[in-house]
Amino acid sequence: MPAARRHHALGAARARRAADALLLTDPADVRWACGFTGSNGWLLWTPWAARFVTDGRYAEQASREVVGAEITAEGGDLARLLAETWPSGVQSAAFSADRVTVDTAERLRAALPDVRWVPGTHVLGPERAVKDEGELAAIVRAQRISEAVFVELLERLRPGVSERELAAEITWLHLRRGAERMSFEPIVASGPNSALPHARPTRRVLERGDVLLLDFGCVVDGYASDMTRMVSLGQPRADVLRVHALVREAVEAAEEGARAGLASAQVDALARTRIERAGYGSRFPHSLGHGVGLDIHEWPSVSFRSQDELPAGCVLTIEPGIYLEGEFGVRLEDMVVLDDTGIRRLTDLTLDLVTV
Amino acid sequence: MPAARRHHALGAARARRAADALLLTDPADVRWACGFTGSNGWLLWTPWAARFVTDGRYAEQASREVVGAEITAEGGDLARLLAETWPSGVQSAAFSADRVTVDTAERLRAALPDVRWVPGTHVLGPERAVKDEGELAAIVRAQRISEAVFVELLERLRPGVSERELAAEITWLHLRRGAERMSFEPIVASGPNSALPHARPTRRVLERGDVLLLDFGCVVDGYASDMTRMVSLGQPRADVLRVHALVREAVEAAEEGARAGLASAQVDALARTRIERAGYGSRFPHSLGHGVGLDIHEWPSVSFRSQDELPAGCVLTIEPGIYLEGEFGVRLEDMVVLDDTGIRRLTDLTLDLVTV
Repeated sequence: MPAARRHHALGAARARRAADALLLTDPADVRWACGFTGSNGWLLWTPWAARFVTDGRYAEQASREVVGAEITAEGGDLARLLAETWPSGVQSAAFSADRVTVDTAERLRAALPDVRWVPGTHVLGPERAVKDEGELAAIVRAQRISEAVFVELLERLRPGVSERELAAEITWLHLRRGAERMSFEPIVASGPNSALPHARPTRRVLERGDVLLLDFGCVVDGYASDMTRMVSLGQPRADVLRVHALVREAVEAAEEGARAGLASAQVDALARTRIERAGYGSRFPHSLGHGVGLDIHEWPSVSFRSQDELPAGCVLTIEPGIYLEGEFGVRLEDMVVLDDTGIRRLTDLTLDLVTV
Repeated sequence: MPAARRHHALGAARARRAADALLLTDPADVRWACGFTGSNGWLLWTPWAARFVTDGRYAEQASREVVGAEITAEGGDLARLLAETWPSGVQSAAFSADRVTVDTAERLRAALPDVRWVPGTHVLGPERAVKDEGELAAIVRAQRISEAVFVELLERLRPGVSERELAAEITWLHLRRGAERMSFEPIVASGPNSALPHARPTRRVLERGDVLLLDFGCVVDGYASDMTRMVSLGQPRADVLRVHALVREAVEAAEEGARAGLASAQVDALARTRIERAGYGSRFPHSLGHGVGLDIHEWPSVSFRSQDELPAGCVLTIEPGIYLEGEFGVRLEDMVVLDDTGIRRLTDLTLDLVTV
């Protein structure tokens, strides 16, 4: 990210919290703000001074990666390092209350007793949500890998193979195509297992007539992708086709109506009302989607509970689902990027129920 | 785990914290205490009442898995569910201050303002550290998979293959052999990259003469394994051989001297003094090891900083390392289980520097 844009964005986040400084401790926040890709480093940022502290293991990596901050890398107690390098004149600091543990907050208070600590949630949420061209390109590269894997996988779907084996195959195919890692453990849910919104791969083997839910994504240059598609082994039953068509309509309704400037709840409602009108409202028990970027789940949540306004440039998943316990479930998931007039699909794959 | 043992162990943890109840929120703690394997569920436990709360997505899974607690599964606000089902007479509850965020603690206080909250770290640490036969068997099965993969991998090591490709291969070989997932992203560090204690696989390709550090493990039935071994591509240099022999001596010294009842710092010193005496003390910048179980890193830390006493039945890694920046690094890692007289190695693989 260009230094000027980052500086401006961090300034906006600081102003929103009305604090002298931001203390960033979440690895994705830290990476976004200063480039450090390790798992244990904190960034204290003000417009006039920035300090990066990490433990001794990361000294070499920090000196290679960190941009725009003075680096201190030694020992293991980041609260102490922060106190020793604290910039004069900084009397208050905002921190991520949804990331920092009670224990860490206590250590910060003990090390820096005169600082006023300002708790916040999603401290860089709106800033990180807006993707620049480089970030978008990484997300799309990750998604293209997943799409190629999906197509490749279709040839390997046959009765007798287990969900676990398919999940292993999915992971391997992604890594072989250059993914850094999976965004999350692939979800491979067959037959009645597809009715579990958060299924994990089991030893169940595919049977002829099964519906199969595949939900996976991968990471490229730190950025995640996410998609869900449905496959039928053999001719699908009429009820599967009907529910699939309904979920697809819900995706399409959200994609037609979504644009920057709407509230999350409005976009959620575009899809949810379709499903409710068809009588399946109670079978869609989760949010419509979520932001995607350095984290697989990031701000904003596209939820009926959220009035957050969606900014231009944010990347979201659109993933309605209908789950019929003991029978089957259908979820379909695209990634889109918003602008002021609508959306652009980042997923380049049909929403069809694929029959193999 | 037998119900009686779990009951006794939870009682001991509660007594240590001097609270009426334990509130368990960490997924591994929750799984250990009541069997739930999902990612979002809390267990409130007292000897006379136990409540499990989760969001609506996990209703079906909770009813299948949770043992020894009343289940409530609806909505998404666990603090509210907990307040609604709070057992009468419970006036104080211990929670994991090293896991619970400031935000969650605030929501708990708001939902249950009359409860006295007792912060603790490693709330179930000593209880989870002591493995029963079933837990040990799962760890060993995971380790045997990793050992088979290590041997299989040796045939694929050749100049021209990249660290990333090898990491993908390692993951695939584990999954194919039945691992649920990797314990962590495999570390494949070649040549000078091996001098980074926390290296991640890069695009660097192996060259003849490289030393190669391989650090990986996998998960079976929820339990993790962990191992590190060194390989040389072609005849190793004299300095590599010398450092490797020293690290090996450090492992063996720790394995000869370790037993239950010692402090962590004493076991750390068994290995560290060898390395210090040889003049490499500053090149061994991390702890000797850590507990392994449902989490890849769990209590106890085998560290010079820790006076925690090591209990009989705990599973630890022994993993000293020497890192020579810009040149190469050597780390060797075994898993062991402690009893009152010594250790039993769970790793069944030579510590030799393997030449391919």
